[in-house]
Parts: sequence; C-alpha cells; structure tokens
Amino acid sequence: MSEANKPASLAQLVARRKAGHSLEADLYTRPDIFETDMDLIFGRHWIYVGVEPDVPEPGDVFVVDIGKTSVLIVRDDDMQIRAFHNVCRHRGARLVDGPHEQVGNLVCRYHAWTYSLEGDLVFADHMGEDFDKSCRGLKPVHLRSVAGLLFICLAEEAPADIEDMAAAMTPYLVKHDIPNTKIAHSVDLIEHGNWKVTMENNRECYHCGANHPELTIPLFAYGFGFSPKTLDEDELEQAKRYEDLVKDAHNRWEASGLPSREIEHLADRVTGFRTERLPIDQSGQSQTMDTKVACKKLLGNITDPALGGLSFWTQPNSWHHFMSDHIVTFSVIPVSPTETMLRTRWLVHKDAVEGIDYDKTTLTEVWIATNKQDAHLVEVTQSGLVSPAYEPGPYSPYTEGLVEKFCQWYMGRLSAHLETVA
Amino acid sequence: MSEANKPASLAQLVARRKAGHSLEADLYTRPDIFETDMDLIFGRHWIYVGVEPDVPEPGDVFVVDIGKTSVLIVRDDDMQIRAFHNVCRHRGARLVDGPHEQVGNLVCRYHAWTYSLEGDLVFADHMGEDFDKSCRGLKPVHLRSVAGLLFICLAEEAPADIEDMAAAMTPYLVKHDIPNTKIAHSVDLIEHGNWKVTMENNRECYHCGANHPELTIPLFAYGFGFSPKTLDEDELEQAKRYEDLVKDAHNRWEASGLPSREIEHLADRVTGFRTERLPIDQSGQSQTMDTKVACKKLLGNITDPALGGLSFWTQPNSWHHFMSDHIVTFSVIPVSPTETMLRTRWLVHKDAVEGIDYDKTTLTEVWIATNKQDAHLVEVTQSGLVSPAYEPGPYSPYTEGLVEKFCQWYMGRLSAHLETVA
Amino acid sequence: MSEANKPASLAQLVARRKAGHSLEADLYTRPDIFETDMDLIFGRHWIYVGVEPDVPEPGDVFVVDIGKTSVLIVRDDDMQIRAFHNVCRHRGARLVDGPHEQVGNLVCRYHAWTYSLEGDLVFADHMGEDFDKSCRGLKPVHLRSVAGLLFICLAEEAPADIEDMAAAMTPYLVKHDIPNTKIAHSVDLIEHGNWKVTMENNRECYHCGANHPELTIPLFAYGFGFSPKTLDEDELEQAKRYEDLVKDAHNRWEASGLPSREIEHLADRVTGFRTERLPIDQSGQSQTMDTKVACKKLLGNITDPALGGLSFWTQPNSWHHFMSDHIVTFSVIPVSPTETMLRTRWLVHKDAVEGIDYDKTTLTEVWIATNKQDAHLVEVTQSGLVSPAYEPGPYSPYTEGLVEKFCQWYMGRLSAHLETVA
Repeated sequence: MSEANKPASLAQLVARRKAGHSLEADLYTRPDIFETDMDLIFGRHWIYVGVEPDVPEPGDVFVVDIGKTSVLIVRDDDMQIRAFHNVCRHRGARLVDGPHEQVGNLVCRYHAWTYSLEGDLVFADHMGEDFDKSCRGLKPVHLRSVAGLLFICLAEEAPADIEDMAAAMTPYLVKHDIPNTKIAHSVDLIEHGNWKVTMENNRECYHCGANHPELTIPLFAYGFGFSPKTLDEDELEQAKRYEDLVKDAHNRWEASGLPSREIEHLADRVTGFRTERLPIDQSGQSQTMDTKVACKKLLGNITDPALGGLSFWTQPNSWHHFMSDHIVTFSVIPVSPTETMLRTRWLVHKDAVEGIDYDKTTLTEVWIATNKQDAHLVEVTQSGLVSPAYEPGPYSPYTEGLVEKFCQWYMGRLSAHLETVA
Repeated sequence: MSEANKPASLAQLVARRKAGHSLEADLYTRPDIFETDMDLIFGRHWIYVGVEPDVPEPGDVFVVDIGKTSVLIVRDDDMQIRAFHNVCRHRGARLVDGPHEQVGNLVCRYHAWTYSLEGDLVFADHMGEDFDKSCRGLKPVHLRSVAGLLFICLAEEAPADIEDMAAAMTPYLVKHDIPNTKIAHSVDLIEHGNWKVTMENNRECYHCGANHPELTIPLFAYGFGFSPKTLDEDELEQAKRYEDLVKDAHNRWEASGLPSREIEHLADRVTGFRTERLPIDQSGQSQTMDTKVACKKLLGNITDPALGGLSFWTQPNSWHHFMSDHIVTFSVIPVSPTETMLRTRWLVHKDAVEGIDYDKTTLTEVWIATNKQDAHLVEVTQSGLVSPAYEPGPYSPYTEGLVEKFCQWYMGRLSAHLETVA
Repeated sequence: MSEANKPASLAQLVARRKAGHSLEADLYTRPDIFETDMDLIFGRHWIYVGVEPDVPEPGDVFVVDIGKTSVLIVRDDDMQIRAFHNVCRHRGARLVDGPHEQVGNLVCRYHAWTYSLEGDLVFADHMGEDFDKSCRGLKPVHLRSVAGLLFICLAEEAPADIEDMAAAMTPYLVKHDIPNTKIAHSVDLIEHGNWKVTMENNRECYHCGANHPELTIPLFAYGFGFSPKTLDEDELEQAKRYEDLVKDAHNRWEASGLPSREIEHLADRVTGFRTERLPIDQSGQSQTMDTKVACKKLLGNITDPALGGLSFWTQPNSWHHFMSDHIVTFSVIPVSPTETMLRTRWLVHKDAVEGIDYDKTTLTEVWIATNKQDAHLVEVTQSGLVSPAYEPGPYSPYTEGLVEKFCQWYMGRLSAHLETVA
C-alpha cells in the first residue's frame, strides 16, 4: 500500500456500501479482508463441506481444509459421524493426509500418539507419570448433518438457527435419500477469483444465455428473471406460460407429497438459505444434455423420473441440485484472496453400477462444462475489478436480486460483528 | 520487517539521498515503495506504451496493463485513437483480453453490456427504466501521440509539458514516419530486477565493452563517455577523432534538414527527455551486425541509408533508436518490486515484405542479444543490492552522468509529491 | 491479519512461553518473526556454513547465502581463508554466483571493478581523480574455523564465546582431521517447514523407531532416552547393558587419547553446543547399512575403525557425526518462514579414491534416506501447527530434553535482545 493511500477500515467499508451495487474492490482483493472473511464468515458460520457418503463405513476418514484449519470427519464403529481438528496434541503434526482414508485408530506418524475414532488419546509413549491423557484428546468441531448434507462450524459456539434450516429443508431433501447415495464423481476446481465473486456468479443466470450453452438446455430461459420492458409480445406470452408451468408443477408435486414451493431466507438469517423445486425443459427429468435421467436406478424410492430439479442454496458457501436420478452438490472454499476452490460432487444411488445404470460422461458433462465457463467468468471479473478505475456497478433489479441478497447477508454479518466488538 | 528495524519513510529516503551515488536498497526492493512508484511515477506521468501501428485499422484494440490498471487503446471508424479503462461498468469484468484484437463494438462477455468504439454504453439488458446509460460509458484515459509514439497518463490531470516535448521532438521524428510503419517483431522480456535498475542500466554504456559484443559493432566506444586520464596517447587521438566525426555529421545532417543535435531535459522537466542523432560505425547505416540496413525499403521518403541513429530517451520508461531503415523502441513496465517487463518492438516500413525487403533475424539479432545480456546484469545487480551490506556506491562522473540524471528526476518527482501533501 | 486479531508482540511471546512445551504457532509461522529470527539469531550468532575443504586451493571461492545476505569465502595465495560480503561496492551487483568457483581476482562482471583475494579494490575505470579506492574494499565478515569447521557471524561484533567452544571441541575433532578431507558428496534439501521445526526434529530420536529404519541399524535404540515405566524386565535389562556399554567405551576411548565424554552447553551459552562420542551397534564402526566403514582409507592417522560416532551439535544451526572413516555434517539455513535448506556433506580422506576406497551409495544411503524421512515429518508438522486449533503440546521428559534445550536457548536469545533494547 502506497504511503499516499490509507486503506479503508472494515467499519468504513460496511458503512459506505451502496445497496444494489457490486462491492468495493477492497472487499474482493485485500489480504486483510480475506483474513477477516476466513475469521468472521468461514470461522463462525455453518460451512457445507461434504455428504454422509464421504464416510460410508466405520473407520472412514474424510479431511477438509478451510484456510489454515484442517478438519477430519470420521465415522466410528457405532456409525456416528464426528468432526475433529486434524492436529496431533503433542507437537502439532497433521494427523491424516486425506482426502479419504480408512483407519482403525487415528495414529500420529511422528511419535505414534494414538487416538480412538471418538477422539480420545489412548496411547502416548515415554510421557511419564504426571501425564494426563484425558486432557489430550482431539479437539472437536461442530458437525450437523442435514438429511445427509454435512455442515461444520469452526467457532466455539455455532449458530443455533441451523436447526430452523434443517427443519425446513429435511422434508424437501429426504425424498432424494442422500445417506443411501454414493459419490460417482468429484472434481476440485480452482477458480482465479475471490470467493465472493464465485458466489455472486452462482446467484444469477443473467450471464447464462451468453455463456452456458449446455446448462440452458435443461434450464428454462425465463426461470431466472427478466425485464418485462425488453420482451416483445411473443416473448411475454412465453414468459407467462412459464409462470403457469411452475404453478402447475408446484401444485402437482406438492399434492403428491413432494415439497416444492420457494422458501427464501437468504438475507434474514445467520444461516441463510433458499430452496425451490423448478421444472426442467423438454423431458422434465434431469440436468443433462438430453434432459433425461443419467442414471437408470432412481434415488431412494422415487419412481417418477420427471421431478424437475430441487435447488438449495446456502450462505455463505454452497448450492445443490436434486433430481430424481442424481444430485449435484457444490462446496466453495476460499484458498487465497484471489483463488477459490469449487468442489463439485455427483451422487447417484449407492447400488447404481457405472457402465450399467449410468455413464459418467452423460452424468457430469453439463456441470463440468458449466463450471469451466463460470471459472473463466470469475477470472475475467477478478482481473478487471482490481483496476483503480473499477467502481461498484448497478445490479439488474430483474435478474440479479439474489446477488444483492448475498451481498446483504455478507455485509450484515460483518456489521453484526462490528456491533459486537464496538 | 523485524521489530528491530522500522523502515525509513519516503520523506527520509528523499532527504538523505546521496548525490552521485546509486539509490538506497529500500528504493529498489520495498513493496510499499513499489506501490508508491506505481502511484506517483507510473500513475501520474506520461508513460510510453506503444505506437500508432499497434492499432492500424478501425476497430483495432491494443491492451496494455500498468500494475493493476488495464487500458485499452482503440482506433474508431474516423481513424481517431482513444484510450479507455478496460473495465466493464457493470460488475467490473475485464473487457478485452488483448494484447491485440479486432472488434465491431466493445462487448462485455459476462452480461453483454455493449460499448461503442467511442466508449459510450449503447446496450445493457434487464436494467429497468431508471437506468441511465449515459453515466455508464467507459472511463477515458489521457492519450497523446508524439509523431506516432503513444504515451498515456493515468492521472486525472496529465502533465502539460508533454506539449513541449512533442514540439521539440516532432521535427526529429517525422522523417522516420512512424505512422506508416508496421511492427515487424515484438518481444516481451521479464527482467528480474526493479524497474529503476532496468532504467539505470539503459542510461550508461560503461558496461558495454565487457558485456555487449554485438551492440559495440555499430556503436562507437567513445560515444558514451570516458575518463581522459585512463587513455593513452593513441586512444586520446581516437577520442578526438570521434568528437570531430560527431560535429561533422551533425553539421551535414542538419544542413540537409535532419535535426540531429542534442536536446537534454532529463532532470529539469516533469516529462523528462533527451535526444541526439549519433554516427554509426563502419558503413554508418544501422544497428545491425554488419552496420548495414536490415530493410531494403527505407522509412518514409528517406533515400540515404547512412543517417546514423537518432536516439530518444524519456523519463520514466522508454528509449528508442531511429535509423534510416528501421526503428527499435523500448517500453519499460514494472511488474513487481523485483520484476520488470521490457517490451521491445522493431518497426519497418509498412509496405516492406519479410523475406524480400528484410530478414527478421538480421533485423533483430543485435538487440535480442543485448537485451538478454542486460537482463542478466539487472538480475545480478538486484540480487546483490538486497544485501544489508550494500550501500549506495559512486557513479562515474565520466560514464554514468545520465544514470545520475535519471535518479535526480526520480527523487525530484518524489520530492515534488511530498511538497504537495505537506 | 484480520482486524479481529492483533498479533502478539515478541515480548509477549517470550513472556508467555510454557516451559517443556512446543512453541506457539506464531513463532513457527509469522513472517515478521521470521525476519526477527534472521536478524537476531542468524544475523548475530555464529552460523555453521561449511568446511575448510570447501576452498582447498588458493583462489577457491565458496558462496553461502543467509537470507538476503550473500557471503563469499575465499582462500588467498597464503592459504588464509577469509569471508566477505558478496556485493560490489560500485552499484551493488552480486560478485560471485557460486556455490564454488576458481578465480584469480574477484572481478565484477558489470563494470569490471576488480578486488584482490584479500578484498582490496585494485581496479575501477573512469572513476576520476578524487576517487579513493582504499575506502571501497569488500566488506569483511567474521570467520572462525574450529578444527576445520567454518563458522561465520554477520554481526559487527561476534559472540566471543566461540573461543570456549573451540577450546573444548578441538581435542575431540582433531583426530578426524577435517582439513585433510574432501567433500565426497553434498546435497541441498529444501524442507517445507520453519527452521526451528527442522532443528527440533534433529534434537530427539523419539521419532526414530517409527520413521528411520536405516538409521536405527547403526544407532542403539536406548541411546536417546526412554521412560523406564514403559519397559518390561527384558527391556530394562537391555537398557542397563547399553548404559554399561557407553561407560566402558568412554573409558577405553579416553584412555587411548580420544576425548569422548559428554560436554553439554546447549542452553547456557550464547554459542551453545553439545558433544559426545557414542557406540555404534553391531561392528561398532560407522553410520552405514552394515555398520562397517564405508571408506577403506581412514581419516587422519586413525587405525582403529571401531571408534563409534562422535556427535557435535551447535545452536542455532548444525549437527555433525564423525566416524573413523567419514564425517557427515549438516548446516541448516532458513529460506522463508516455511522453507528451510538442509545442506548435508559427506567428507572422506582427501586421498581416498571413489570406486576404490569408497562407494558413494554405501557412504551416503543412510543419511539420504533419513533426511528424506525427516523432511516429510517436518512438512507434516508445519502443515499441522498452522491450525488455529494447535496449542503447544508437552515434550516427553525422557526423550525430548534436548528439544527443550533448543527452545530454551532460542527464547533466551530473544529475551536477551529484548533486555538490550528495553
């Protein structure tokens, strides 16, 4: 930072945020703001990190790194899933490399200190008589499974309102039976932008028409907002038909016991979320290139392949699409001020057989292509907004409302922190 | 920075600069000084970035990045050249990747916001009725062509004295007819040193004898200063003959309408510069391995190939050599405290044909070799001066006078800034 | 650093250090603490960097870089070894690339300034009449050879107690005749951890059993401490036998004029050190896979191959093992907060011939394997202790006593500095 310019304080950045506009460049670029994000946002909120099928069997361990914090998620012999800090209590060695391992106990490779799957220290040689093993168990991390989706919270006290989200979402999610799925494919993609640029890109489809030729096959063009003024009569008629289609589908699905209507708490909760089940174009079945199911074996006890797509978005870091045959689930983990990891998983029924029930390319091609396109847009945005000439620009009131909700949530969380320390 | 040492302030560094000596290591190494340089020097002075032949046709766009600032230079349908910030006014995406593209309008790939070649926003979908396009045009950047050499200034107010430089230099430059050249070859070289080490290395030829076997074929050994005390009688006689040769050449060239005598304002102007036309050894024609023209088609309406070499140096970031047949032009752009981009272009007559009128190797080999040698010297200097044992050493009063002028200019500009903010 | 957390001051970190426990993560990770270490520890103590055989002949130059400071060690025509800063006094260019070169004089490649092997400036062209060469000699660096081991100190005033260490150690070392050895093999390994993690790993063998299958062939399991409570009767008997074995060996070796008993000043001296000659298992000869000498030509005038291994540890940065046939010597140089260079050299008699007297693989395989294993442990420890969940853990009172001495020495040196500036 040049002597000529002093950086704005967090309080200043919060106070001068212009509603309905993209954020100031400082918030997307400054290393100290990144540390603040890792502390206040990723250190104190519920972070979506994986699914129960990450640890299907006793002794299965799954490791996720959030900034400098490494967490291991382990299933014990009684099938309970727990999360611990992945750090030996002796000299701090990382216990498990990960991402997935199978263990009997958790043994540190350095001096063989040994922990049970419940996190207790059960062996430590040469430590003498005064040494109390009971004080040296692995440090626990909050973990909550929402119908099979795993959320962790690194803070000592985790936000209690995850229970509200779980209560609201479980009826939507159970039908897709996440615990009885398996991970058919997983990709970690590093996007060259701040995590908030990645999240904002996810929260609108204004860019879809010009950038996502694959995704816009199953998704309806009118499903993500539009300015009525720019439509001609034909287009207005189509938009109206889409509105009716959604209403009819919701009525039909809900009548058959499938919760589908929108719930939206993106900006008014600590644990913000939104959900809605939306029709899929053409055959109405799945987010694939031909809109048909990619996996013949449907999830849980689903029999109708044409359930559309249940979408679920959380603040600060996830989105998910649940179809009759498969689930695509996305976890966003910041890596640096300008690098973000997007972890995408495709889940199918645990008994589905690759090559027989599903073909991996057919299953994954829409979102592999879409992710790559989004990663490019994120990079192009990050590389542009670093310019001193950048200033926050206006969001479209018709197509970028959820981007604004993300920004409101984010600024609100910073604001709440500032009030706490004031 | 260790708690044991507090870094010197900019004012302290300016106040204690020792005239006639290299700068303190802090000025070549500290990240905050680099930011200061990017702000005060590269953000507020005229920076040489390219030539009119970078954008020969309407719709041609040329992109140059200076630190975090990306600038696009575009020629419109009326042949006017303009510069704009390369940032979409919506969410900040970089508009043009560059370095060279051909466009109809400037369309942002993210949400298709569209700007005319004059920078006006002409299309933005879904923005609603209250949206005023006229406030959302591309932000302009100052641009001045000096006889075809393009200078930009990122400040709101650009130094006015570029007009003095343009008035003085245009008579020297017009003969070489830059607008009617083409870029025959271009190389971007990253030197592993601070940009001021790169500039200082350019401002003396004390190192030429030991390091530049190719460049010292066309250049005279006595052309860059010497201590008379170290010459024997023979050498003194040769030095005298060189002095007479320069005088005769200047008289002859000026009589034929070719301005040639030295103009020197390196340290006494905001927009510092120096020029002089100097004889070339042997055939007297060009900076090539055999000193003869590399391009049979001479520039503009030149007929005499033996015009020597007109050199033009600017503060803070360029130098240029104009011969009868070709031009070599150098632009220095800092990349980091210890990395500097040197962009070298070789220009020939726009109608010259490669393989017939010129051979690219013959055209470029002297400066490709010389740049590589200089890059090594810059790296060796940067890697040495980081040592706590380094202290500013004395410049030779005979051979490093222009290095001292560069340092005077630089310290003068910092000093002027400190007076402004005091 | 997030606004939410202010980093602890050096004084706070020193004051709250918990005895008998690993250090706080800040001390292993913070860039400013790294700068402090480079300044207070590596800038003001005696640093082990090489051996007299690094510069066997007049004109031999050896370059070692410690942080930003580059030092050249040169042997002059009278066989004297000196150390200088590797920086030209003109414009700061690095003089010698290194690591090993042969020169007549020390000539700067930039402008040919020329220094004698004694560091005097003997030639500098074009500098004019007022230029005084006598003020522009190379800046000297303190150098002390302890029986052939080269220590340098970058401070103006070097700790005087190296003379105590030299007096105590020379009788132990002379028998192995370092000046008449040669470097048979040298490896620079970058470990991905803080230099203190590397040092602590060296100061215990608690981790050897689980990690060093090769090293534990020549080394006795009981030689590095154990908790008597965890041994069964058989093991206690073996431990007792090992104790007797050491006593007998010391008596026998000392009777034959070979100093062997422990000297320990790791934490109570500015120039901390420890030494002891220890038995080797099986044949008792050398740290090799079959415990026999790797070089048929023994060092100096040694005739008995079974001298065990004389170990020598220094604070802050070295350890060494001297056998009858070869020496392994280790120098630790920090590179960044999380990168450390471990330079390992294997020395044999200077007249030993590779392929006849020794095989390089046999000579080096134990420590090449051990270093690789240690580098992995260092990386695993560094990657774990960055977690906010890490807290200093307890050292074993039986097996990690020398780790604690290292920490005591380090904290003591920081503490002494704080008293000076208070």
